Amino acid sequence: MFELLSALCYQTSMMKDFFKVTELSKVLAFVTDFPPVRSETVPLSSANGRILAENLISDVNLPEFRRSTMDGFAVQAASTFGATEGNPAYLAVKGAVNMGERPDFSIGPGEAAKISTGGMLPEGADGVIMIEHTAIIDEQTIEAYRSAAPGQHVIEAGEDFKKDAKILLAGRQIRPQEVGLLAAFGKTSVKVYKKPIIGILSTGDEIVPIDQAPGPGEIRDINTYTLSGQVQEAGGISLPYGIARDDFEDLFNKCKQALAETDMVLISGGSSVGTRDFTIDVLSALPDPSIIVHGISISPGKPTILAKSGSKAIWGLPGHVVSAMIVFSKVVRPFVEHIGGVPGQAKIEPRVKGRLSRNLSSAQGRVDFVRVRLVEEGGVVWAHPVLGKSGLIHTMVKADGLIEIGINMEGLEKETEVDVYLM
Amino acid sequence: MFELLSALCYQTSMMKDFFKVTELSKVLAFVTDFPPVRSETVPLSSANGRILAENLISDVNLPEFRRSTMDGFAVQAASTFGATEGNPAYLAVKGAVNMGERPDFSIGPGEAAKISTGGMLPEGADGVIMIEHTAIIDEQTIEAYRSAAPGQHVIEAGEDFKKDAKILLAGRQIRPQEVGLLAAFGKTSVKVYKKPIIGILSTGDEIVPIDQAPGPGEIRDINTYTLSGQVQEAGGISLPYGIARDDFEDLFNKCKQALAETDMVLISGGSSVGTRDFTIDVLSALPDPSIIVHGISISPGKPTILAKSGSKAIWGLPGHVVSAMIVFSKVVRPFVEHIGGVPGQAKIEPRVKGRLSRNLSSAQGRVDFVRVRLVEEGGVVWAHPVLGKSGLIHTMVKADGLIEIGINMEGLEKETEVDVYLM
Repeated sequence: MFELLSALCYQTSMMKDFFKVTELSKVLAFVTDFPPVRSETVPLSSANGRILAENLISDVNLPEFRRSTMDGFAVQAASTFGATEGNPAYLAVKGAVNMGERPDFSIGPGEAAKISTGGMLPEGADGVIMIEHTAIIDEQTIEAYRSAAPGQHVIEAGEDFKKDAKILLAGRQIRPQEVGLLAAFGKTSVKVYKKPIIGILSTGDEIVPIDQAPGPGEIRDINTYTLSGQVQEAGGISLPYGIARDDFEDLFNKCKQALAETDMVLISGGSSVGTRDFTIDVLSALPDPSIIVHGISISPGKPTILAKSGSKAIWGLPGHVVSAMIVFSKVVRPFVEHIGGVPGQAKIEPRVKGRLSRNLSSAQGRVDFVRVRLVEEGGVVWAHPVLGKSGLIHTMVKADGLIEIGINMEGLEKETEVDVYLM
Repeated sequence: MFELLSALCYQTSMMKDFFKVTELSKVLAFVTDFPPVRSETVPLSSANGRILAENLISDVNLPEFRRSTMDGFAVQAASTFGATEGNPAYLAVKGAVNMGERPDFSIGPGEAAKISTGGMLPEGADGVIMIEHTAIIDEQTIEAYRSAAPGQHVIEAGEDFKKDAKILLAGRQIRPQEVGLLAAFGKTSVKVYKKPIIGILSTGDEIVPIDQAPGPGEIRDINTYTLSGQVQEAGGISLPYGIARDDFEDLFNKCKQALAETDMVLISGGSSVGTRDFTIDVLSALPDPSIIVHGISISPGKPTILAKSGSKAIWGLPGHVVSAMIVFSKVVRPFVEHIGGVPGQAKIEPRVKGRLSRNLSSAQGRVDFVRVRLVEEGGVVWAHPVLGKSGLIHTMVKADGLIEIGINMEGLEKETEVDVYLM
């Protein structure tokens, strides 16, 4: 017992020596230490949400021909100049454009061709008069009541993209519109970054798999599941490695295996003093190791570890479920995105503006993340802080998102307008 | 030719009679006409993002025992009352709590037990003193420099959820924290709404599959791909039915097949006057048909059709790619979500506040959706309108989202603060 107590106190004093916290912004700057994963080619129908891994150049004009954007009559615009209801232009109808075909006639001065939206303008025609501004006189003649300007109601050849233009650059997240753009150029498959595979490992003698009934003193493994969901939302593939005992060999072996098989490893738990040091020992024993960050000046989430083995990141996340989720969202996620090919430039993140429903205090020198619930009342969106211990999952279930209290602030006053980042 | 022209003008006048546009808010109110899809049971690891289809009640207290949230010593709080650095409390160390085990001893007055974060408090103990506030005197004695309050650094049994409490209600979207919550209760699988299957059909003689080189007058089928991506983002499964010719039989047969095999059908194209009426004819010939909406007072997207066959929705979307995407995002998506089990109550949508970079005019009596690009300059997020014809996909690729100009507004002035909905 005395040995155990002494060891504990020795560890505690040791910890105080090297547990120098790093500022959040400095931690985030380490992303560039980790190279992106390789690319793969996927069918276009599976490309939505993926990160483009090639630059694309247009090989044709888009569209390849002059198209009508209205139902009406294709004309030489000059034939209609000055036309009004009182003084219509009379036009000879030369034919009708069939959809999907090149018209086999051309349009000269004083001539018109019936055309539908999307139809190819006949040679000679440079504008379209809407059907609503015409009337039929006889089998071969219409009146036009408005003049068409050259190019009116027309998409020019190459107006969407010119041949040899840059269409999309590598690093672009593919949204439905980018999928459509790739379709327009006939790309049936596309080169994207692989989804980074993130190994997930829980630690702790008290943790049991979720299909087991926990005995006295035991609880089910929540973190594997919350973190897996978060990895998926960050564009990664989660690969759980189960639960490591509080035992050097077990954690080391599982960690080494995960590191060999994945692109990044998350270890959660081990935020108690003893286990934390023990995790550091395991990380230091991995191939080509370095401990990059040991503690971050954020709350919750201070005892977070970032280590590197070879070119891969290994994280030691707090064991408390709320802390682990917040650290993932605010610290780990940018690393997952980075190795997944998302470029570093600042994205403008969607958020909800809310009004804080009460005063919040905070310590200077660290960034605080506070869970809030959003409630709309009479047109005002209120952000209600959800207080509660960081071991309680219900506080995250109740919360809609997080607000941030900056490193140099002592708190936020009631009614302050805050940005709520949904999670 | 004369017959064709007459038919066209006849259709145009017909159209003017029945093309009475419906207000957007009224269109959205029709969601309740369409029943949700059935449910299915999925493994918990696939549940993220799905919509819960059952109410869940806790079958145990969570946690089931009193746990420590710190490394330190479990005590009877009363034993430490009044303890300070100058006047410490001396406590007899009765043992150490092993993680994941019920301590085989209890704590009485003046006694303490070493405990780690997550450990089960011994019987009799009701609080924890942090290791940092203690010192070791000898093998069996520690000093405590602070007093512990009852319940301090402890999670009580049932503090997260009490037995028989409602955990989650049907209709809840499962986020990573809900996945974690389900894990905590040992739910290895969960009942969720099926992902609605959305049939997608493009129409037009000028449209060719994307793996074909378009001939003169032809373009590739973009809408199937943009809409598929949007369906996926709305939580649905897209099922493409290819391209229907501008021909009653072909459109009718494909539409009927899609309707039989899916939960909702999107037809895009046919926004030219002739084809629009023709689409109405096809929709009216389907089993148990009704045309619910024929035109919406929005721009772009006015010529949108909503029909019902049996209990399923069929949409006639504009052919222009930008219009079809905007109508999906602002009109169709809530219907996909509704039949996918998302409850009707207003969600607070994430958005980005921006400052409009120029004046925008708009017609009263309709809602305008304007594409904008976001650019952050000197701490200000500017929303730059992306103008351009709604047939040009590059305008959507360039845009980050949409702003809305309300039905009773004549426009927005430069520098107005606007909500940008990312898409």
